[in-house]
Amino acid sequence: MPQKNKSLPIRISRLQQNFPVYKIDSLFFLNMSNIRYLSGFTGSDGAFLLSSGNAILLVDGRYTTQAKLEVKNVQVIEYKDKIEGIVQAVKELNLKRIGFEAFSTTVETYNQLTKRLRNKVLVPLSDEMKLLRANKDETEILLMKKAADISSAAILLLINEIKSGCTEKELALQLELNALQSGADQIAFETIVAAGDNSALPHARPTDRKIKKGDFIVIDFGVKYGGYCSDETCTIAFGELTDKQKNVYQIVKQAHDRALDFIKADISASDIDHCARSVFGKKYGRYFSHATGHGVGLEVHEAPRLASNSKDILKPQMVVTIEPGLYIPGLWGIRIEDTVLVKKNSCEKLTKMDKELIIIE
Amino acid sequence: MPQKNKSLPIRISRLQQNFPVYKIDSLFFLNMSNIRYLSGFTGSDGAFLLSSGNAILLVDGRYTTQAKLEVKNVQVIEYKDKIEGIVQAVKELNLKRIGFEAFSTTVETYNQLTKRLRNKVLVPLSDEMKLLRANKDETEILLMKKAADISSAAILLLINEIKSGCTEKELALQLELNALQSGADQIAFETIVAAGDNSALPHARPTDRKIKKGDFIVIDFGVKYGGYCSDETCTIAFGELTDKQKNVYQIVKQAHDRALDFIKADISASDIDHCARSVFGKKYGRYFSHATGHGVGLEVHEAPRLASNSKDILKPQMVVTIEPGLYIPGLWGIRIEDTVLVKKNSCEKLTKMDKELIIIE
Repeated sequence: MPQKNKSLPIRISRLQQNFPVYKIDSLFFLNMSNIRYLSGFTGSDGAFLLSSGNAILLVDGRYTTQAKLEVKNVQVIEYKDKIEGIVQAVKELNLKRIGFEAFSTTVETYNQLTKRLRNKVLVPLSDEMKLLRANKDETEILLMKKAADISSAAILLLINEIKSGCTEKELALQLELNALQSGADQIAFETIVAAGDNSALPHARPTDRKIKKGDFIVIDFGVKYGGYCSDETCTIAFGELTDKQKNVYQIVKQAHDRALDFIKADISASDIDHCARSVFGKKYGRYFSHATGHGVGLEVHEAPRLASNSKDILKPQMVVTIEPGLYIPGLWGIRIEDTVLVKKNSCEKLTKMDKELIIIE
Repeated sequence: MPQKNKSLPIRISRLQQNFPVYKIDSLFFLNMSNIRYLSGFTGSDGAFLLSSGNAILLVDGRYTTQAKLEVKNVQVIEYKDKIEGIVQAVKELNLKRIGFEAFSTTVETYNQLTKRLRNKVLVPLSDEMKLLRANKDETEILLMKKAADISSAAILLLINEIKSGCTEKELALQLELNALQSGADQIAFETIVAAGDNSALPHARPTDRKIKKGDFIVIDFGVKYGGYCSDETCTIAFGELTDKQKNVYQIVKQAHDRALDFIKADISASDIDHCARSVFGKKYGRYFSHATGHGVGLEVHEAPRLASNSKDILKPQMVVTIEPGLYIPGLWGIRIEDTVLVKKNSCEKLTKMDKELIIIE
């Protein structure tokens, strides 16, 4: 499954150009999504070392053949022990100041490396690396559109089949089948189908609870296609709602719509969070218990963060979720989520479900 | 979904008794499997702080309601920022020497914590924490047996349906459907169905390649049930094999069987690796490109490691895989894997598929 991706050399050289800024002569990666992004290698374990003149993918014996098929213009070295593999490569290239992802390298790994590389300097990089994959290129956007198409279609198909007495688990399974049978490579994260009082849990897991009249059903679903994730949430009503339920749905929808209208390049992520949050005011604000959104890509949660304390600024080609929700403990909850592509003056919805309230009779 | 698990206080007090040995007065966890193991909380984000007299689960707003439903005898505190939440709890309990999992704490998190906890000592624990979940109790073993039953049955059902012209992807999907429809909560890891030359890749991903005569088909599959994983690999033949293929299958089977016969409590994990590896000898040893096995539990890969450089010793109630394989690059590969429960003088197979060569005509 070799990736013929012309973006890889561009991504690598963009990083190498920043070495002087980061005060490093090389950089190693342990985050497998970053390794895939830079090398095309899709395995689940390995390391990637980049100097100004070399790119080396280090893998164990399970992945040697696969790595050689998948990567181009990158040397593949097989290790018995990952730490030892990195140490050997660093020594052979005579590297001195080696940057690393501070958010993907454990204290254990760091301690093992420093012990074996006594005369080298390991330079932790955090903010510098977090937005590495945030701006998507055209190939990535095509894959993300396809992932979103598959999952939106799977949700629509499911909604047409919901009947009184179905359990959350049955619906979640049917939803996953719908998506897998229409081309999803994988389910991107644990599917949420949460009805009635379970919908008050933002991250509920499907249970054997049966759907009944008056339920909100929160469906939060995503698939992977070509490595890339989709992420969408619909809250639908089963049978007639109370006026309060209808009213609160419209408030969440308003927060969602306003944030979508507001979003464009060069806006700060915290302002978008504030835009959605301000709709809830004092009365409902305390029931909005999470951030407004997050980046999506090779991982379902990645940079930027659309939260009140985020320092990220949105840029064109970023792909982010907008997902305000209100959760009344013990009663019910509502979340409405789209994944959107940031553009210069607006955004483009990648997820396809209409977010007007759907009431299944 | 509250866990009524009587083991949790035992697990916690066992850890607390070791505080003097580790020279700590408290211990925080970021590894979500460890947090689940100690508290019963099944969410995907949080922290757990244990002092000699307190157990505190820290979660963000998405999980407050769920956490309060799931945990007993553990205080739940909601944070806006995880680092800040840990810092506040450490200060309020006036802790001085705080242990942490060196293999689950990133350099970034460590640096943020040390900056905010200047007069405290953070004590990295590695080997001391790695085997925390290795010895399974009766409740865990029951869940693992059920997971193994479901996945073995799903594999058997699939094998009865394989036809010439099926693709790897179609088979992988059908296998997952079989398991999800018979009660699996989730698929435990990326399903491997690898036929013909793809079977030479130990960690192949299913492709559109069609099954044809003379193929080995490697099926590596597992599910989650009640949080616990199963892991089993069958290599079956589609149509008549060459004598060499049959011969090599028997060699892998012999390595698998010998390791299974050899395994019992108080044996070193590296000796089991050696036992399996020695069957391959010089001729085939270089084609066995990974370790012989690993622990299984809440995670599909956990301690102990059954590898040549492992220092682990097997103990009763550990659950481990035995999975020797030979991979002839460009041609084909074979892996045979069972998950077993270590007993005093032997082991008990949890996975159920017979490992005699199955030839589908």
